[in-house]
Amino acid sequence: MRAVDLIERKRDGGTLTAAEIDFLVQSYVKGEIPDYQIAALLMAIVWRGMDAKETAALTASMVGSGERLDLTRFGRVVDKHSTGGVGDKTTLVVAPLVAACGLPVAKMSGRGLGFSGGTLDKLESIAGYRVDLSTEEFLAQLERIGIVVTGQTKDLAPADGLLYALRDSTGTVPSIPLIASSIMSKKIAAGAHAVVLDVKVGSGAFMKDKRMATALARAMVAIGRAHGLAVVCELTDMEQPLGLAVGNSLEVAEAIATLNGKGPADLTELALAAAAEMLVLGRRAKTVSAARRLVEAALAGGGGLAKLRAMVECQGGDVRMVMDPSRLPRAPRVETLRATRTGYVRRLDAEAIGVASVHLGAGRQKKGDPIDHRTGIVLRAKVGDRVERGQAFADVHVAGKPGDAAAIEEIRSAFEWSATRVPRRRLFLGRIAS
Amino acid sequence: MRAVDLIERKRDGGTLTAAEIDFLVQSYVKGEIPDYQIAALLMAIVWRGMDAKETAALTASMVGSGERLDLTRFGRVVDKHSTGGVGDKTTLVVAPLVAACGLPVAKMSGRGLGFSGGTLDKLESIAGYRVDLSTEEFLAQLERIGIVVTGQTKDLAPADGLLYALRDSTGTVPSIPLIASSIMSKKIAAGAHAVVLDVKVGSGAFMKDKRMATALARAMVAIGRAHGLAVVCELTDMEQPLGLAVGNSLEVAEAIATLNGKGPADLTELALAAAAEMLVLGRRAKTVSAARRLVEAALAGGGGLAKLRAMVECQGGDVRMVMDPSRLPRAPRVETLRATRTGYVRRLDAEAIGVASVHLGAGRQKKGDPIDHRTGIVLRAKVGDRVERGQAFADVHVAGKPGDAAAIEEIRSAFEWSATRVPRRRLFLGRIAS
Repeated sequence: MRAVDLIERKRDGGTLTAAEIDFLVQSYVKGEIPDYQIAALLMAIVWRGMDAKETAALTASMVGSGERLDLTRFGRVVDKHSTGGVGDKTTLVVAPLVAACGLPVAKMSGRGLGFSGGTLDKLESIAGYRVDLSTEEFLAQLERIGIVVTGQTKDLAPADGLLYALRDSTGTVPSIPLIASSIMSKKIAAGAHAVVLDVKVGSGAFMKDKRMATALARAMVAIGRAHGLAVVCELTDMEQPLGLAVGNSLEVAEAIATLNGKGPADLTELALAAAAEMLVLGRRAKTVSAARRLVEAALAGGGGLAKLRAMVECQGGDVRMVMDPSRLPRAPRVETLRATRTGYVRRLDAEAIGVASVHLGAGRQKKGDPIDHRTGIVLRAKVGDRVERGQAFADVHVAGKPGDAAAIEEIRSAFEWSATRVPRRRLFLGRIAS
Repeated sequence: MRAVDLIERKRDGGTLTAAEIDFLVQSYVKGEIPDYQIAALLMAIVWRGMDAKETAALTASMVGSGERLDLTRFGRVVDKHSTGGVGDKTTLVVAPLVAACGLPVAKMSGRGLGFSGGTLDKLESIAGYRVDLSTEEFLAQLERIGIVVTGQTKDLAPADGLLYALRDSTGTVPSIPLIASSIMSKKIAAGAHAVVLDVKVGSGAFMKDKRMATALARAMVAIGRAHGLAVVCELTDMEQPLGLAVGNSLEVAEAIATLNGKGPADLTELALAAAAEMLVLGRRAKTVSAARRLVEAALAGGGGLAKLRAMVECQGGDVRMVMDPSRLPRAPRVETLRATRTGYVRRLDAEAIGVASVHLGAGRQKKGDPIDHRTGIVLRAKVGDRVERGQAFADVHVAGKPGDAAAIEEIRSAFEWSATRVPRRRLFLGRIAS
């Protein structure tokens, strides 16, 4: 088997067998195929795509490139994944709620990049919180309290890490089969038996339109089917940010408020829905509506918040920040944006808000950049809301850096206004399940 | 400027500016952009193509990556290039004829790869012939005898060499703009003021159909226009081999026979036509028909053969082999293939003959493989020829190796037969000129 022959076949629109894909992936990981051949192959895949069989085989190869966690002693393990967006702190709400309902949650999360935030960065707003648990610590904590949210260990799907770094520098990120196999390989390697996926659609998401998002969802459901994983995929709106807070400390505070029953309606609804799906996949409830009642009880009874507290404690974080979010790191100054005339929010560009949050220091342009956990934006109005002249529509939490003024202008420009009433946006756009 | 942004633009079907292309090429040559980024870019170019401006800019960048020979003191210098085929020994006939007409010929040739032969390999059949002249030796010989055929010096268009090696291992060879700019950059760097191009079309050529060949010819003419070079491009048939001999010594012998006025009709005609075009571009004649009379005189009067002899002598080759081709290296055995029934040659697959010649040792599978200059095939019938039962249709010159029998079978299978009359193939398929 020669790499160049396989590249040429894909270039010409042909398909690769599972054995050929595994040869390419494992040889690449071992350094036996140079990165320039894989780069050309990846661009050919962006061009020609991969069918369901090829995508499943690529996923299997990436899983097979490293260790695979065996979590069967914990019963059915259900993972949760969002394709990423602006203000998406859902994991911080869903994981504790699900764990409070008795289903263990073992989650490996990622960091933010560009306009899109990351759960690990948010959790690190809590002083002392460790995201670098060893596999042993991960398993011990899961055993003890039934919830753990940490970073991915290096031994899981190492081929995915290598391929992702190469894709990032060769313009080969936007490919449904490559994205789907990357996500699913990590879930499978991490020991999940089922996955609830949230595919974000819109300006603040990687998938800008519903057609692409649907294709990604279908690809992930197909991979799940090929690997014996039940998959439920929700398509949800990311034209505007989720909830009101964007920025690490601010989002943790909003997640805690949500677990206290005082969260924004969209975040609360998304968290309840995702948690209910997880309980059904985890066989803790027979129907989504039965599961929903369990989750609502965990929210109302404070079980969710207690689980978050336990997790933070276990992972070395300052639990006082969970019990009193005003203790979370705070920006030195808040600039309030006010409406110059009365009107309705017609559009609230999630990507622009995400980019502005990066400029405020809350996110990173490139991997490894430091971030400021204190800064960000708290929206006071979303699409469809009426704002009176002089009324605040956003609070901008700034560190007091030279770029702040420009970022504030970006936030102002992210809002488009209408003199007449505007309907609110629908959050749920579709559901695809295996 | 970031390479990844430019890769993404090309991936999405956009165009790159001349400055951007030059940044990519020069940074790559300096090792400042890694080969995996260029590999992804090349695959994106195979996918999306390049417009005439981009192709001209790429050519200019490759020329600018190294030295450019200044041959203006020799007057107008006209180069000649064939895109390669099976049995194509035209340079060995054309260069001496043109030089004999007083137009200096300074040619840098290549080696064979796969089914396609190379002029340097053929010339090395002549004991002692040097193809590694320094620039000084190259210029001195051109000054002294007006003809030189050698290998490309490393200082000319080094970016082309680097890019070609990368393309070869990443499945990114088949792209009109990449092929056209590669050819033209070498011609421009070698100091040509005009070029006669022979684009081969058919089974034994890189361009399998006329549409692709026409696109390549147009791309090269456009590059010539952008760089102030006059270009004449002939499209010629390569469904069957050119002439009768395939294999290095055998082809040199056939070229010498042609310069003696005893060559096969197609080779003779192609050589006369190309030489006449070169004389017109070199302003040694006003019209192609006037040029044709000069070339025919050089052939009939032995001027062409004398120039070949002078060149071989100057480059250290054994001139006795030119004056008596039976002294050229000869295979130890000749197997003659005979017709099992009377019929006409309906098809004679040039690629199959080329591949068989590689299996006989006359060509190489990959760069750097050694070759056997003695082996090859001499056809005794071509498409349209009638062969009686028992009559020979090919002589196979074998070294006596284990693979010979299989190669002989490949040659036999390359012939398809018809019981009824078959028209001969047309050699000239089109002409595109600036």
